[in-house]
Amino acid sequence: MSILVVGSVAFDSIQTPHGAVDHCLGGAATHFALAASYFTPVRVIAVVGKDFTAEHEAVLTRRGIDTRGLERADGLSFHWTGSYVNSLNEAQTLGTDLNVFANFEPKIPEAYKDSEYLFLANIDPVLQARVRSQMPNVKMVCGDTMNYWIADHAANLAKVLRELDVLLINDGEARMLAGEKNLVLAAKKVLEMGPKTLVVKHGEYGATSFFGDRSFGDGIKASHPFRAPALPLAEVVDPTGAGDSFAGGFYGYLASQPELTPAVFRTAMFYGGVMGSFAVEKFGTERLQGVTREEIDERFKLFMEISHLDTTRA
Amino acid sequence: MSILVVGSVAFDSIQTPHGAVDHCLGGAATHFALAASYFTPVRVIAVVGKDFTAEHEAVLTRRGIDTRGLERADGLSFHWTGSYVNSLNEAQTLGTDLNVFANFEPKIPEAYKDSEYLFLANIDPVLQARVRSQMPNVKMVCGDTMNYWIADHAANLAKVLRELDVLLINDGEARMLAGEKNLVLAAKKVLEMGPKTLVVKHGEYGATSFFGDRSFGDGIKASHPFRAPALPLAEVVDPTGAGDSFAGGFYGYLASQPELTPAVFRTAMFYGGVMGSFAVEKFGTERLQGVTREEIDERFKLFMEISHLDTTRA
Repeated sequence: MSILVVGSVAFDSIQTPHGAVDHCLGGAATHFALAASYFTPVRVIAVVGKDFTAEHEAVLTRRGIDTRGLERADGLSFHWTGSYVNSLNEAQTLGTDLNVFANFEPKIPEAYKDSEYLFLANIDPVLQARVRSQMPNVKMVCGDTMNYWIADHAANLAKVLRELDVLLINDGEARMLAGEKNLVLAAKKVLEMGPKTLVVKHGEYGATSFFGDRSFGDGIKASHPFRAPALPLAEVVDPTGAGDSFAGGFYGYLASQPELTPAVFRTAMFYGGVMGSFAVEKFGTERLQGVTREEIDERFKLFMEISHLDTTRA
Repeated sequence: MSILVVGSVAFDSIQTPHGAVDHCLGGAATHFALAASYFTPVRVIAVVGKDFTAEHEAVLTRRGIDTRGLERADGLSFHWTGSYVNSLNEAQTLGTDLNVFANFEPKIPEAYKDSEYLFLANIDPVLQARVRSQMPNVKMVCGDTMNYWIADHAANLAKVLRELDVLLINDGEARMLAGEKNLVLAAKKVLEMGPKTLVVKHGEYGATSFFGDRSFGDGIKASHPFRAPALPLAEVVDPTGAGDSFAGGFYGYLASQPELTPAVFRTAMFYGGVMGSFAVEKFGTERLQGVTREEIDERFKLFMEISHLDTTRA
């Protein structure tokens, strides 16, 4: 079933120990959409500038992504400049040019209105809430955010959190949002803020999901967390978009399934890790554009082998 | 089969956000021996002072641990003072009084000579090598070390590494030993230094084992790492000895099995995590003294549930 994603489609200029790229296609919605497109149809809502060419759009449409919600505004696209030269674990932001993104007003095309899955990528929570309210009949809403919104836009973010089925953030963000160092206690507090389920990404160590009483249907209670592995990689070329690609693999798989069961959720966590591990192998979205379904399934199998006791029965 | 462990039996004075204890029984060999004792017979070689009473010794002997290798020296036992008040992830050492440990010369009792498994806990690599050379017929040698020996005693440590079947250290130590930030590349370099297998502990994120061509018998090649989970804990009372308890559970299980297969190794990694997770629940060795085999098996099952896709078939 279709996922509607609202977020940034942008250009990134990136330095890593493996080299540098200038103005490559990036943005949270781009990484998410490409990763999710291997599992389910995806529709994008974003704003781009005049520098966004037909060639850039083809990166999305070649993967079957619906781009009717891509608005063209007068100006340049959102441009982020970052460096991982000092640490591959955390980007050092060298520049953020919002450009046309500064006045982004998400508009939902009529053809998108029947989307059953909504993904609110990391943007202003006011915009996230606005999109959410215009999609009252979605089956599931998953959202992301970041330290900036947590610190300075807490009240607006709180409104979004109350509307989420799944919140998908990283360790530091979870701890910051809860004001609690211990991850289990932090997760408990975050779940009390609204999300039915919390997925916490640990970068090179995988991801953990924390469940609440409303995570699944009646009668199904998941009393303990679930932890998905990450693939130890000998070469991380560019970490940009790894988290968004995790989200795309995770939510894309979820949306492809008829029902949300604990087994489906676990499998989705694994596919999230799989897509995140591909994303970092090349600069920008290059690897996500070119990966094959066979490679995805093979890596899924590898994820089981690196984490399961008895893979012969898996 | 019996494990011989050589290392420190000491007293710890510990501050954590949950309180403080003064001169509780601790030391790497103590934590290791207690954790391993749930799986296989354990024999200890260490030196203690006059402050080590019959009551302290009974903590070990009640678990069936052979203490004939406990040497009594004239003076006080090794005493470590540390604080986790600022961070539960890393101890701040406030004091290290080596006392009788400063002149420790491990002596192997005749009755210990038939031990088939040797664990060299974190002590001077010169002593580790000496013990290793006196046990030429052991079936397997597993060892630990720390940043101090890596930085300042590299040549001595190199000799020990060449004699190890399994080296068991944490992330930072692996990166430091290899002089390489990327963990996969660091592991490759460490394996070239001698150990057949490297187990890297990630604290709250579990542990990963990296295999070489000689990790298993002829014809068995493990081409990818194996990652064991850690239990997300709402309350960490005292992290002291978590790594040694991991080692005890890991090696204790290994030594209890007739053969070293990949499946046995994976299961051992899980038992390591299980014993590490118990160790931190109470101050000092209290939880390790009182845990039951039923609790261990129950937690092992929980470890599978938090990390396996399909636990109904496990």
